[in-house]
Amino acid sequence: MAKPKVNTMEELSLAIGVSRPTLSRYFQDPASVRDSTVKKIQRGLEDVDYVPNFFATRLNRKSTGLIGVIIPHLNDLFFTSLLEVIQQSARAQGYTVITQSSHGDADLEQHAAGKLMSMNADGVIVAPLGEGSSARTFERLMTSMPLVFVDSHLPDALPGVPFVGTDNTQSISLILDYLCQAGESPLFLGMPKLNSNAMDREAAYLAEMEKRGLRSEIVPGSSQTAGWEFEAYAHDLMDEHFSNGRFRTGTLLCANDRLAIGALRAANRHRLFNRSGGLRIAGHDDHPLSRFMTPSLTTVKQQIDRIGEEAVSILAGLISDGRPSLEAKETRMFETTLRVRESA
Amino acid sequence: MAKPKVNTMEELSLAIGVSRPTLSRYFQDPASVRDSTVKKIQRGLEDVDYVPNFFATRLNRKSTGLIGVIIPHLNDLFFTSLLEVIQQSARAQGYTVITQSSHGDADLEQHAAGKLMSMNADGVIVAPLGEGSSARTFERLMTSMPLVFVDSHLPDALPGVPFVGTDNTQSISLILDYLCQAGESPLFLGMPKLNSNAMDREAAYLAEMEKRGLRSEIVPGSSQTAGWEFEAYAHDLMDEHFSNGRFRTGTLLCANDRLAIGALRAANRHRLFNRSGGLRIAGHDDHPLSRFMTPSLTTVKQQIDRIGEEAVSILAGLISDGRPSLEAKETRMFETTLRVRESA
Repeated sequence: MAKPKVNTMEELSLAIGVSRPTLSRYFQDPASVRDSTVKKIQRGLEDVDYVPNFFATRLNRKSTGLIGVIIPHLNDLFFTSLLEVIQQSARAQGYTVITQSSHGDADLEQHAAGKLMSMNADGVIVAPLGEGSSARTFERLMTSMPLVFVDSHLPDALPGVPFVGTDNTQSISLILDYLCQAGESPLFLGMPKLNSNAMDREAAYLAEMEKRGLRSEIVPGSSQTAGWEFEAYAHDLMDEHFSNGRFRTGTLLCANDRLAIGALRAANRHRLFNRSGGLRIAGHDDHPLSRFMTPSLTTVKQQIDRIGEEAVSILAGLISDGRPSLEAKETRMFETTLRVRESA
Repeated sequence: MAKPKVNTMEELSLAIGVSRPTLSRYFQDPASVRDSTVKKIQRGLEDVDYVPNFFATRLNRKSTGLIGVIIPHLNDLFFTSLLEVIQQSARAQGYTVITQSSHGDADLEQHAAGKLMSMNADGVIVAPLGEGSSARTFERLMTSMPLVFVDSHLPDALPGVPFVGTDNTQSISLILDYLCQAGESPLFLGMPKLNSNAMDREAAYLAEMEKRGLRSEIVPGSSQTAGWEFEAYAHDLMDEHFSNGRFRTGTLLCANDRLAIGALRAANRHRLFNRSGGLRIAGHDDHPLSRFMTPSLTTVKQQIDRIGEEAVSILAGLISDGRPSLEAKETRMFETTLRVRESA
C-alpha cells in the first residue's frame, strides 16, 4: 500500500506529532534535537511519503551543500572518469555535485561559473579550458567561493588556488625510460596547446631528452591551434605525415591516449605495424578504451581515483574553514605507473 | 578597473536607482516592467558586479528553471553525447540541467530521483537503468514533476510517460539488409539484458531474420546477467568462443558499438580479419570512436541530436502545460542511417 503523501512541514508536523520548529531544527542539524525526538521523527518519516525541500532546509544555513564542477568536455572518457570519482567522493561527504561543461568555449566557461555563483554553491572544482579561459572568470568566482583546479591549471594567474593533478615530469620520464631502453628514442606528438598539460608534457619531454643526452624532435603541426577532437586531430596530422613518407618508422610518444588512438588508426591505415622494425606508438593516461585498441596501447596510468578524491578533500577543507583560498600556492601531484601493451 | 561588487538587491537598488520591488519584478519577469525601466536596469547592471541569486529570484515562482537528467553511466560516450545535446537544447530554452548518474545501481537511481524532487526540478529526463530500475522510483517522481524517458524505457509500467529513442526495428532491419546483401547472414551478439534496447534489438533481430526466411542464431552467453562494461564483456565472451573454435568466420552483428569494439579486439587477437573469407563484425550507434577502430567499424548511426532535442522539447511542453504526463502513451522514434566502413 502506498504511504500517505505529505507535502509540507506543517502536514508532517501533524502526521508525526512533533512541532514544526523542532522538525526544522532536525533537518538542519539532527544533533540539535534530543535523541528520543530524533527516533520519533525517524520512525514517523518511515510511515509517510515526504521529501524535504533541498533549498528550504538550507535557506538558513551558510551552506547549500552544492559543489560545482566545470570540465571542458563531457565527450572525453578521461574527464567522465574523473567526474565519476568526484561525484562519489562528494556524495560520501554529503555534497551534491552540479556539473557544467564549458563545451570548449570560454564564454560558456564564464556562464557556467556565473550559474554556480547564482546557485550559491559552497565551492567549485574546475578543470579549466586553459589558454582559452579568462582569468577574470575565476578571479570573480573566488570572491564568492573556494576553488580548486584539477587536471590542469592556469599558470601563475591565480596564486592560492590549490591544484591537484598528475606529475607530468614523472610520467614523461617513466615512459621515456621504458621506450629508450626497449628501442629508439621517441619523437613527441603534442596536444593542441589548449591547457597546462599540453605545455607541461612537451616541456617535460624536451627537458628529459636533454637530460639523457638524446636528440628531441616534436612532430610538426602539433603546435597548431586546434580543438578538443584529439583523435581526429592526431589521425589527420599523422596520416598526412605518413602519406609524405615521414615518421613511418621509429617511436612516437603522444601527449595523451586520445591522440595515440588517432595516430594508431593512421598507422594502421598505412600498415606500419605489420613489418619488423615498424613504428612504435605510446600514449599517456590509460584511457578506458586503450587496452581495446589494435595494437593495444602502451601508456602510463594516471591515478584518477586519488586525484578526484584529493580535489574533493581539499575543497571540503576550504569550505569548512570558511577560507576562499590558501595563502600559498599548493599543488598535489600524483605519479603514474607504466602499462606495457602491444603498441610499444 | 574592476567593477564595484554588489551583493544584495538592496545594494543594487541603491546603486542603480530603481526600487527593490521593481528590481524583483524585473528578475522574475522583465516583461512586467516598463521598457524605459528595463533599459535603465540593464545599463545599471553593466556598471556593477552583481549575480542575482538563482533560488531567491525563483522563490515566488512555480518554476525553478531546473531540469534533471538521470543516466546510467557517465563513462559511456553514447550517453555523454546525448547529455551534451540535452544541455545545449535546455540552455537555449532557459533551463539549467542537473545531471545525476545512477552508476548502474537502482538505489542510486532512486537517490538521484529523490534529490531532483527535493530540489524542486521542473521536470526530469531519464535514461532508465531498465531491468534494475524500481518502477516505484518513477511512479513517485511523477507525483512531483513531469518525466520523459530517453534512449530506453520501462515497458508498460508507466503509461503516459513519453519516450524518445531510436526505432530499433528500423535500425536492425537496415543493417541486416546490408549485411545479408554483401555476404552471409549474421549471428547476433546481444547486450547484457539491462534495458529495453537489449530486449528490443534482440527481438527485432529474431523477427527480421524470420521475415527474410533466414536462420537466426544468438551468440551463447550474451543473455547472461552482466554489467555496463560492454567492451570487456564482449571481448571476454568472444575470446572464449574464438579460443574454442566457434564463430571464427561468418558475420557478427553486435547490439551496440561498445560491444563491437570489444569483439573487434578479440577477433584481432585471434587474427580473424587477416584472411579472405574471414570474420565480419558490425555494430549499432556510431560511437564517436568507431571510425578510429582497426578495422574501422561498420554500424548504424543514431540521430542523437534529434533524440536529445525532442526529449527537451516534449518535457518543456509538459512543464509549460503544467501536466505531469500525457493521457496516452506517446513514443517518438527516430530512424538510423548506415555507416559502411571496413569491418563488414
